[in-house]
Amino acid sequence: MFYHVKELQFNARVSKPDPAFASLLLEQFGGANGELAAALRYFGQAFGARKPFPDKYDVLMDIATEEFSHLEIVGATIQMLLTGINGDLKNAAERAEIMRLLDGKGAKEQMIHESMVAPQFLVGSAGTPAFTNSQGVPWTAAYINGDCTGDLTADLRSDIAAESRAKMVYEYLLQFTDDPYVKETLNFLMTREVAHFQMFEAALESIKPNFPPGVLQSDPRYSNLYFNMSTGNDFSGPWNSGETSEMRETYQYIEDPIRYVMESHGLSGQMPQGTHRTMETVEQLDRDMSQLRSREINMAAPVDQEQEWNTPAGGMTSTERDTI
Amino acid sequence: MFYHVKELQFNARVSKPDPAFASLLLEQFGGANGELAAALRYFGQAFGARKPFPDKYDVLMDIATEEFSHLEIVGATIQMLLTGINGDLKNAAERAEIMRLLDGKGAKEQMIHESMVAPQFLVGSAGTPAFTNSQGVPWTAAYINGDCTGDLTADLRSDIAAESRAKMVYEYLLQFTDDPYVKETLNFLMTREVAHFQMFEAALESIKPNFPPGVLQSDPRYSNLYFNMSTGNDFSGPWNSGETSEMRETYQYIEDPIRYVMESHGLSGQMPQGTHRTMETVEQLDRDMSQLRSREINMAAPVDQEQEWNTPAGGMTSTERDTI
Amino acid sequence: MFYHVKELQFNARVSKPDPAFASLLLEQFGGANGELAAALRYFGQAFGARKPFPDKYDVLMDIATEEFSHLEIVGATIQMLLTGINGDLKNAAERAEIMRLLDGKGAKEQMIHESMVAPQFLVGSAGTPAFTNSQGVPWTAAYINGDCTGDLTADLRSDIAAESRAKMVYEYLLQFTDDPYVKETLNFLMTREVAHFQMFEAALESIKPNFPPGVLQSDPRYSNLYFNMSTGNDFSGPWNSGETSEMRETYQYIEDPIRYVMESHGLSGQMPQGTHRTMETVEQLDRDMSQLRSREINMAAPVDQEQEWNTPAGGMTSTERDTI
Amino acid sequence: MFYHVKELQFNARVSKPDPAFASLLLEQFGGANGELAAALRYFGQAFGARKPFPDKYDVLMDIATEEFSHLEIVGATIQMLLTGINGDLKNAAERAEIMRLLDGKGAKEQMIHESMVAPQFLVGSAGTPAFTNSQGVPWTAAYINGDCTGDLTADLRSDIAAESRAKMVYEYLLQFTDDPYVKETLNFLMTREVAHFQMFEAALESIKPNFPPGVLQSDPRYSNLYFNMSTGNDFSGPWNSGETSEMRETYQYIEDPIRYVMESHGLSGQMPQGTHRTMETVEQLDRDMSQLRSREINMAAPVDQEQEWNTPAGGMTSTERDTI
Amino acid sequence: MFYHVKELQFNARVSKPDPAFASLLLEQFGGANGELAAALRYFGQAFGARKPFPDKYDVLMDIATEEFSHLEIVGATIQMLLTGINGDLKNAAERAEIMRLLDGKGAKEQMIHESMVAPQFLVGSAGTPAFTNSQGVPWTAAYINGDCTGDLTADLRSDIAAESRAKMVYEYLLQFTDDPYVKETLNFLMTREVAHFQMFEAALESIKPNFPPGVLQSDPRYSNLYFNMSTGNDFSGPWNSGETSEMRETYQYIEDPIRYVMESHGLSGQMPQGTHRTMETVEQLDRDMSQLRSREINMAAPVDQEQEWNTPAGGMTSTERDTI
Amino acid sequence: MFYHVKELQFNARVSKPDPAFASLLLEQFGGANGELAAALRYFGQAFGARKPFPDKYDVLMDIATEEFSHLEIVGATIQMLLTGINGDLKNAAERAEIMRLLDGKGAKEQMIHESMVAPQFLVGSAGTPAFTNSQGVPWTAAYINGDCTGDLTADLRSDIAAESRAKMVYEYLLQFTDDPYVKETLNFLMTREVAHFQMFEAALESIKPNFPPGVLQSDPRYSNLYFNMSTGNDFSGPWNSGETSEMRETYQYIEDPIRYVMESHGLSGQMPQGTHRTMETVEQLDRDMSQLRSREINMAAPVDQEQEWNTPAGGMTSTERDTI
Repeated sequence: MFYHVKELQFNARVSKPDPAFASLLLEQFGGANGELAAALRYFGQAFGARKPFPDKYDVLMDIATEEFSHLEIVGATIQMLLTGINGDLKNAAERAEIMRLLDGKGAKEQMIHESMVAPQFLVGSAGTPAFTNSQGVPWTAAYINGDCTGDLTADLRSDIAAESRAKMVYEYLLQFTDDPYVKETLNFLMTREVAHFQMFEAALESIKPNFPPGVLQSDPRYSNLYFNMSTGNDFSGPWNSGETSEMRETYQYIEDPIRYVMESHGLSGQMPQGTHRTMETVEQLDRDMSQLRSREINMAAPVDQEQEWNTPAGGMTSTERDTI
Repeated sequence: MFYHVKELQFNARVSKPDPAFASLLLEQFGGANGELAAALRYFGQAFGARKPFPDKYDVLMDIATEEFSHLEIVGATIQMLLTGINGDLKNAAERAEIMRLLDGKGAKEQMIHESMVAPQFLVGSAGTPAFTNSQGVPWTAAYINGDCTGDLTADLRSDIAAESRAKMVYEYLLQFTDDPYVKETLNFLMTREVAHFQMFEAALESIKPNFPPGVLQSDPRYSNLYFNMSTGNDFSGPWNSGETSEMRETYQYIEDPIRYVMESHGLSGQMPQGTHRTMETVEQLDRDMSQLRSREINMAAPVDQEQEWNTPAGGMTSTERDTI
Repeated sequence: MFYHVKELQFNARVSKPDPAFASLLLEQFGGANGELAAALRYFGQAFGARKPFPDKYDVLMDIATEEFSHLEIVGATIQMLLTGINGDLKNAAERAEIMRLLDGKGAKEQMIHESMVAPQFLVGSAGTPAFTNSQGVPWTAAYINGDCTGDLTADLRSDIAAESRAKMVYEYLLQFTDDPYVKETLNFLMTREVAHFQMFEAALESIKPNFPPGVLQSDPRYSNLYFNMSTGNDFSGPWNSGETSEMRETYQYIEDPIRYVMESHGLSGQMPQGTHRTMETVEQLDRDMSQLRSREINMAAPVDQEQEWNTPAGGMTSTERDTI
Repeated sequence: MFYHVKELQFNARVSKPDPAFASLLLEQFGGANGELAAALRYFGQAFGARKPFPDKYDVLMDIATEEFSHLEIVGATIQMLLTGINGDLKNAAERAEIMRLLDGKGAKEQMIHESMVAPQFLVGSAGTPAFTNSQGVPWTAAYINGDCTGDLTADLRSDIAAESRAKMVYEYLLQFTDDPYVKETLNFLMTREVAHFQMFEAALESIKPNFPPGVLQSDPRYSNLYFNMSTGNDFSGPWNSGETSEMRETYQYIEDPIRYVMESHGLSGQMPQGTHRTMETVEQLDRDMSQLRSREINMAAPVDQEQEWNTPAGGMTSTERDTI
Repeated sequence: MFYHVKELQFNARVSKPDPAFASLLLEQFGGANGELAAALRYFGQAFGARKPFPDKYDVLMDIATEEFSHLEIVGATIQMLLTGINGDLKNAAERAEIMRLLDGKGAKEQMIHESMVAPQFLVGSAGTPAFTNSQGVPWTAAYINGDCTGDLTADLRSDIAAESRAKMVYEYLLQFTDDPYVKETLNFLMTREVAHFQMFEAALESIKPNFPPGVLQSDPRYSNLYFNMSTGNDFSGPWNSGETSEMRETYQYIEDPIRYVMESHGLSGQMPQGTHRTMETVEQLDRDMSQLRSREINMAAPVDQEQEWNTPAGGMTSTERDTI
Repeated sequence: MFYHVKELQFNARVSKPDPAFASLLLEQFGGANGELAAALRYFGQAFGARKPFPDKYDVLMDIATEEFSHLEIVGATIQMLLTGINGDLKNAAERAEIMRLLDGKGAKEQMIHESMVAPQFLVGSAGTPAFTNSQGVPWTAAYINGDCTGDLTADLRSDIAAESRAKMVYEYLLQFTDDPYVKETLNFLMTREVAHFQMFEAALESIKPNFPPGVLQSDPRYSNLYFNMSTGNDFSGPWNSGETSEMRETYQYIEDPIRYVMESHGLSGQMPQGTHRTMETVEQLDRDMSQLRSREINMAAPVDQEQEWNTPAGGMTSTERDTI
């Protein structure tokens, strides 16, 4: 169950209205890498995690709830930056200030930089944030549905990446405002993305093995091939020479993929090279991992029982935590 | 700030897995009239309401937060109905039960009605709810962005309508499951939509005047015309004869709109008929309402001050409430 | 069958080109609360209404058709506001006026405020309206599909809300143009939204009972609970104290929902309070309403007959109408 | 102005309910190549055509209006095919027939093939068509906005193509129903697409020159090059050998594009080959066409005048028509 | 298999940064008629063409691959036009130049016309092209999925239309830049659209018969009717008088469609008029075409065999080609 | 420039048609984590990488091009799995086999499992892959636009995550087919995702520092706080106790966030705890990183020069590569 207290997690303030920056800030309200995307991504992933991995469920829900609280901070900041618009629009009979400002002649010109103000603030929501990005594109779950794969080692990697992207957006936004209060808020929010990054990284590290994601191993015949598909000005680096980063196989560099593919009739008869893995060891590992992973899930949520969500799942108390 | 407790608001349970019904139930998770749409609609509207109307902000945030809690209940129910899928899929090496079931030969046929199971549960999220409707369409803020108009008398009407629609979806869903536990949960959720309907209705009634929405009056020359634009098998009713429901003007029925429009050259020179209102009374009312509405907003959020969200807005203590 | 006459329903005119306002006006052409949304919403709902409720079918089709006519008025106004763009673009070899204007040096600067002109008018449709909102988002049926629920008491409430929102958009648009002709047209269109509001309200009132929407009653155990989910600065009002607006049950205010839910193990064992309704009376009403509603529909459209749309459905002639 | 008569343009009938086919038929209601797309495409294009080309405006609006009438026929057919669903769902207390049918045990099994019935018919619109395609994807103007380019020779080609596609969908749909009434209706609708195809083709032919679309000529250095970008199993045909279809230039076949591009440093210094056109003749033609096209538009809609849509544009009376 | 060489097909250059034009140019990167749409449209159609029509597969893949190469050219041009943005944003601690420029006081004002720069370049991708149109709408396959119909005579007409539209967009874009290098590139790309137009036209002409698209003939009772659905200022032309363009039937002009439809009870009993075709000849043609078309496809890809893509399909060597 | 050879990179085969699995396989053709998403993600990121980091440009383009080649393999496999559909549909006059099969009475029942076949294969593309996911949702760039942030350390993390997700989808798909040929192909494609994962990981490791992404440091006052926002059944782990994974700061666990936030008035006056970093060291690092990063970009692409894409950027020859 969710609960709300009317205080914001961070004491957000603004010095003066700035609809143009409010429009840019929508990127963090309803954008691809914004707070709504973050909150719903982790919230959605949490459902699947809960039974087999209640500790991961805990961290996902902690962060999801914090992201909802950040969404509120961003929305509150946008709302404060839009102060004046709704009041002006309500003064409908007297022909509002707004029109004069948009003609570029008004004294409050600083307030509304016409050129970047989202039209939705003027003729749509009339001074209230909407769930769009900075260009008015409605938020869509297409941003995040793919990030829930039913496998935590994949999902947590998506979360680390998502926090990286959200951090970048705050870093850029910081360069488009001079308001010291707003900068304080953005700085707090940017920092929390970095904090969450490390939490997800730690959670991922606590699952072993975590590579490759899922259960099935990669095929040793194809796992260390590097196809030089874009030729001219080629480079060598640890991504195509030496050993692969996780499996420590030796890269096989295919200099001329067209010739290679034609001559091998589409890699027919390819054999493992530069690796100690064999088809047999892979098969065995597949079977072992299958048993391990399916058992831990099926035991946590047996298919032939009634299910009740509110049953406690046996959490541990922290002893080593540095609690405030 | 949001806060989460791991107990659900309602003790949701399921008797046995039912992926087919889980797929239908997505309509209330990520559908047009589902709980995510409800929660975000009220949450978004609340930002604009807060300064001038802190009491309406209160009710919007109370209900928004309850809807987030219902979103969680729906998600938890879907997750429980999908028990078994993820575990089977993890058994990747041994060829999971799932395929045999999908061939229609398995013993657990009841569990997975292949024909209606959302593919995303099988090859996407692998047994976890995604933010889509029952046909896999990703949730989009296009469902709700238009419902935030910067005017509470319009917004609350959108909310009443939204609760009506959500109630219908639960009523239909109830007919596609036999699981008594699931029916209990759906019955609770359906009832809450009816409860919220009445709360929004009461909130709307407490604003006066609330018709027409916004500030400007309707033009008496056109406000009581009824155009018979679809001919053949015409009907008479209180919507085109007698007095209009709010303004109590007398309907003017235009039997043959083509002739009427052609002869009047597009309603040029139309004069008010069947009404006591005049252009002058309307203009005066426009001015009065403009002043009233813009003043109450501008006074609550003066444009030339620093803004701080966390400042208390002077709530009243309830005396007459029947508190549990 | 639809039919078109080349005259507009209202004699729309513009004084001079204004591409910037044309861009804003797109909100009523292809926006969430625009005329296309309105026309298709009522047109879609009408199909389901036709057999059991031919009088509601009549009013829905009358208004749907008028909304198509309004869509045309809006499109025609946009087209006239864009006069000059297409002609300039066709002068492709001579380097059109447009570029000079966009450099901000031209004499016709008034004509094209570069900053707010939708790019689609320049490099897409070249001076013709497209089905987008004022920010270029393509119109999507996601705006309206949810508004057709197969129950008229829900659908008509959606229509009342929709007219409220469309009215607001016209009210805002009126503040961004000085052209007296355009203001006349917007004033006409705004007034018609108010007129339709009242028609839908009257239609809803003519259905009894109309609360709750659909067939099933709310559960008396949960129907009058108010959860104080957003704490701090709480308010009391007719939405959480006294009697509920429709069922006249006494509100039960849950001051501390977390404690309440935890102690009741998710509302288990909740009993009706503050209401005269019982589980039994509700069940009986459910059965009665089910019979009533299903019978009126099944009799109007028997499932075991051939269906022919063009069969007359027995319309009544108006006697009391004040016909022009 | 639009007008509606309650009779359908074609006497649509159905023999018996068939929700599965109704689901497929949605492809023509709210699909990419369906009737809504067609109606709005031509309606949108018509705005831009009206002033310079009132005869093309006439044909676009005639066909747009017919497509709206076809949209109604398709919707009416879907509605009749869904007979029974809404009535069953209204019988909510008694547990509707629907559930039993979905279990595959009912006698009316023929009526509802569970496997292909769109869930939206069950828990969304409850037996009424929605603006989606056969897979539930909401209709989007992304299907058609690009088809309005501000140039009739491009737009009419889009229309010819659109009619071709719509024809194909009807051809396929005809193979999924056995209902002779429904086949009659589909046959009528399919035929009208073929009819419209020819009307658009004739309209395109009546504009001269109509190639290339727009004003500017193609550059003779690049207009007849054929790049063999996909090698292996190459073919020769009139599209890469002999003369080009419109400009009658001789194709220059580039056998090995990689070598050709590398050696020419990205086509630098390319000269016209296999053509009589020169840079000079092209430039002259560009200037002439620019003048011609911009003048005919600017004269039809002068930029410095008030605009009034309802002014008659001087239509001619047909003499040679074979009128019914 | 695809292969990439780092040289562009055309030597694209830019004189100086111009983020405003880069924003407009997105229309050809991720817009409805842009290069991504083109490349994927032909690539998608090619799959279905390959077995029965390997020569059409060849031309579709040649052009699809060239369009991918054009997508790269457009992206590279946008990237070069954005030079400076990313570097400035990286200078995050020193408060980048960008903000000063956006205040309209900077010396590099020419570089960033704030008013038209897509926000995504500032706070999203930070100076890199994204797959959106010029208004920030994400590219969607809704633009093109309908263009793949499983019938080449329809698909090639869609391609001809698509090339026409893309040509128009380049023609318009050419009018919004003064950079001679950029104009060179746009001129090359525009010319290639005209070239592709003719290739698709030739490919269509090489299929016989190619009208109507698909297999089934139009019904002679309805194929030459012209419904005058939009009245007032009617025109006569080869699209509604004389003979139809392909079937050479005589148009039957229905002056008053409402009366005609009412009196004929929805065209019941309509008989062929103004045509030599009969129901019988049509039926025979349907059967012949069905056999012809299904046989050529089924023989090329027999349903009861293993399928292997890489098997050569017997291409012919060109003899008459004018090869470079 | 792209180039295409008609041989697939992998010799894809299918044993027999299976439209049901073809529908599921669409998830990798036009789904959120499919090959089109992968190809365009890396291709889009590459533009920004090219000037400052030509070696990263090389690996991004190599992998992007391979993903296009995989998209082709997936499409070819879907096409082969759909063998027979187009041929049947062309047999339009004779009433195709398809309908009989859909009635569940046909002998080829195995071929078409009606219940899971995407309708688009039947009435849309008629047996050709479309750019949708397994539920018919059109591909949208919303899946990937956010993954291009203008910072390689963020982008490469998105790529690692994306490869993880794509791997999972293949792992799941492998469980829904029995065709040994198809399994071979899926196994190859799955393995390549694992290979790419490691390449991106190596590329990320080669950039130093790579944490946090971008330029600005996190604020030490907030970077190690853990808010226990979801209470009940709490867990302790390396994500909320001990040291943070990258910065090695000591976690500060906030047990009761509501109280903490209320008492600190929204974290006002928060001081760094459990960290050696100070505001000053952070500021200095911000300045250093700003200079470093902006300089390396601005030097690679100076803003005051003409830009030419095809200029070689000085690639190194590999010496240590193990080339095939």
